[in-house]
Amino acid sequence: MEHLPDHLLSGYRNFMGGRYSTETKRYRELAATGQKPMTMVIACCDSRAAPETIFDSGPGELFVVRNVANLVPPYQPDGGHHSTSAALEFAVQSLKVKHIVVLGHGRCGGIQAALDPGAEPLSPGDFIGKWMSMVAPAADIVANNSMMTVGERQTALERISIRFSIANLRTFPCVKILEDKGRLSLHGAWFDISTGELWAMNRQSGDFERPGNG
Amino acid sequence: MEHLPDHLLSGYRNFMGGRYSTETKRYRELAATGQKPMTMVIACCDSRAAPETIFDSGPGELFVVRNVANLVPPYQPDGGHHSTSAALEFAVQSLKVKHIVVLGHGRCGGIQAALDPGAEPLSPGDFIGKWMSMVAPAADIVANNSMMTVGERQTALERISIRFSIANLRTFPCVKILEDKGRLSLHGAWFDISTGELWAMNRQSGDFERPGNG
Amino acid sequence: MEHLPDHLLSGYRNFMGGRYSTETKRYRELAATGQKPMTMVIACCDSRAAPETIFDSGPGELFVVRNVANLVPPYQPDGGHHSTSAALEFAVQSLKVKHIVVLGHGRCGGIQAALDPGAEPLSPGDFIGKWMSMVAPAADIVANNSMMTVGERQTALERISIRFSIANLRTFPCVKILEDKGRLSLHGAWFDISTGELWAMNRQSGDFERPGNG
Amino acid sequence: MEHLPDHLLSGYRNFMGGRYSTETKRYRELAATGQKPMTMVIACCDSRAAPETIFDSGPGELFVVRNVANLVPPYQPDGGHHSTSAALEFAVQSLKVKHIVVLGHGRCGGIQAALDPGAEPLSPGDFIGKWMSMVAPAADIVANNSMMTVGERQTALERISIRFSIANLRTFPCVKILEDKGRLSLHGAWFDISTGELWAMNRQSGDFERPGNG
Repeated sequence: MEHLPDHLLSGYRNFMGGRYSTETKRYRELAATGQKPMTMVIACCDSRAAPETIFDSGPGELFVVRNVANLVPPYQPDGGHHSTSAALEFAVQSLKVKHIVVLGHGRCGGIQAALDPGAEPLSPGDFIGKWMSMVAPAADIVANNSMMTVGERQTALERISIRFSIANLRTFPCVKILEDKGRLSLHGAWFDISTGELWAMNRQSGDFERPGNG
Repeated sequence: MEHLPDHLLSGYRNFMGGRYSTETKRYRELAATGQKPMTMVIACCDSRAAPETIFDSGPGELFVVRNVANLVPPYQPDGGHHSTSAALEFAVQSLKVKHIVVLGHGRCGGIQAALDPGAEPLSPGDFIGKWMSMVAPAADIVANNSMMTVGERQTALERISIRFSIANLRTFPCVKILEDKGRLSLHGAWFDISTGELWAMNRQSGDFERPGNG
Repeated sequence: MEHLPDHLLSGYRNFMGGRYSTETKRYRELAATGQKPMTMVIACCDSRAAPETIFDSGPGELFVVRNVANLVPPYQPDGGHHSTSAALEFAVQSLKVKHIVVLGHGRCGGIQAALDPGAEPLSPGDFIGKWMSMVAPAADIVANNSMMTVGERQTALERISIRFSIANLRTFPCVKILEDKGRLSLHGAWFDISTGELWAMNRQSGDFERPGNG
Repeated sequence: MEHLPDHLLSGYRNFMGGRYSTETKRYRELAATGQKPMTMVIACCDSRAAPETIFDSGPGELFVVRNVANLVPPYQPDGGHHSTSAALEFAVQSLKVKHIVVLGHGRCGGIQAALDPGAEPLSPGDFIGKWMSMVAPAADIVANNSMMTVGERQTALERISIRFSIANLRTFPCVKILEDKGRLSLHGAWFDISTGELWAMNRQSGDFERPGNG
């Protein structure tokens, strides 16, 4: 097993002696009957914002897509290989999830790059630039708002892009139809790495609010 | 906070009373100094195979991409929005990870769809079909081997597609160059949901082997 | 006693001072009353996979056929000298065994020869080639799957040929009739020489599974 | 693991906790480097006469063919599926064993059938009858010798057929050539189930002798 980094092997041994050992029955059932998660989470790749950690989730609970800055592109059935759209389709049509949560977080590197597209080390022709260009119109407006601090602009764009992803979710016919029928709900959330606070998007106003602060 | 499903809120309270509360310092430092994960994991969206769970990882350890069937497309700088390629670029060029692990797992729904492309409920024109068509050549060969059981074919394609993703990783110049210089290592692993076993890919032979079973 | 190799004589003295001496009564009874084994095992000649060792069996327990790659040919009452068929008939009709186990194993030289029929040192006109040609159709399919590693192809054919032998067992009228009456069960197993693991064939799916891993 | 009879599973657990656990290194090496047995044994299927038990042999020591009455047919390259010839070829040409031992034993059911071919439950058209017809000429002579007791006739034919098998071994060119060059030796042995005695064939006289009785 010299084929994996030591820190992963050591963590895996903890898993086997811990969670797997106490939840063996659950794993076996999940293997035998297949997954039936109620919730899909679209989260960021950031190592500090894993949804299973933030929501203390066990096996079988969350179907999770993770890409840079937790973006959802618009519905675009052009025959290309669409990672996020494929996962969305699978979650909604095959697994029939009841909730989709777009989970953003503070100090997101992708959002930072979008606000400062010329910055090192990401060059103009790269994939990150293209990927984050999905939020370019909002990024331009926010970046030009010199009245907000750097930190405020970052948080603002993080939250705008969550609302933007939720809007894009609704361009997928299967999402729109099921949401209209009341069989699927869309949610936004934003995690503050430093304080551990979770802010949930108010579905009426679009505002982000803290528990008990509604 | 009625804006999020109850099970997520309840899990979040566990997180705040548990992990966050014992690791507050770590979260604050990670927020202040930024993430510096040593390892990127490319994993599946499956709710039963979260890398943070399997590797018992804490905040800041794993930079994680999750898409259906943990696929890496080949290097294709065509100006499109490439979710996985963008994340890869970010991990390698900006975060300078030392390891990339492609983590597959048993009973993968995406692989199952690839082996039976005409099956319900995924129609021919959908995103999952297009996404999984990346492994179509291998899927065809495996699917036609009627001597193997359904389960054996599934496992075979899951492992083939891990090797395929690792080969595609090497089509990215930044990956190839750093691997050749010995500054980046590529790994494959396959998780058995039922038994909890982790099989690591032998980098010489491509075979999947269990701990201490070399 | 210079008529036998030293290592056998030395081992025989161990047997007399050990097992025979503690089980003298059992040997005498088995000699007096005849053998009544409940189980027949069809195993490979391989020196690393003796069924008595793997199943820690004592005298009188296992009626054992061993040929290269633990193959069972189909029922062919053509008047020829059929070693395996004769043993099968003896076990089923005369000894009335209740179980027949086809026991395969990893790294089987016969299977290796079947996957690479032109390889040295076995020439085209030899007995091994003819013997292993019984699994040639499956070998061809497996050998042509270049997506699987050499090791994966080997394991695949080892398991396919166990299922194939079990299917051939059912072509013998005496086996078929007794199995249908519930008086005889057929089993498959595969032994991993390196790890010592025994994988048992699931009689429904044909898959090979490990203890407690259902 | 309900797929195997209980007595085998229980024995397997003994093996894993016993022999495998104390000889793990040896099994791993044997798996990695392949088998290199010095000795091939041609033995009977009888559950009371396993060569690994009688010779107290460990993994990797004996390459073992087992058929009813430990017979070796003559060299007959007719394109048929010859189980014993295939194993012989594999042992001699590929594994390059130094010794071949034909191991017979007392109270052999196959020999008994040969001496009484009309007896129940083996009918004329069966495989056992055909298989044992290899020793029919000797069986006829012995069966007609009414001066010997039933037991003496049985032992006589058991030993005659060992010499007969050794003679047949020499009809294989690869055996003959290597024996003439002094690179392969042929041995006969006969095991008494009741007393545990091993009788070795004197290569000059063909007599069976006990240790220290030469």
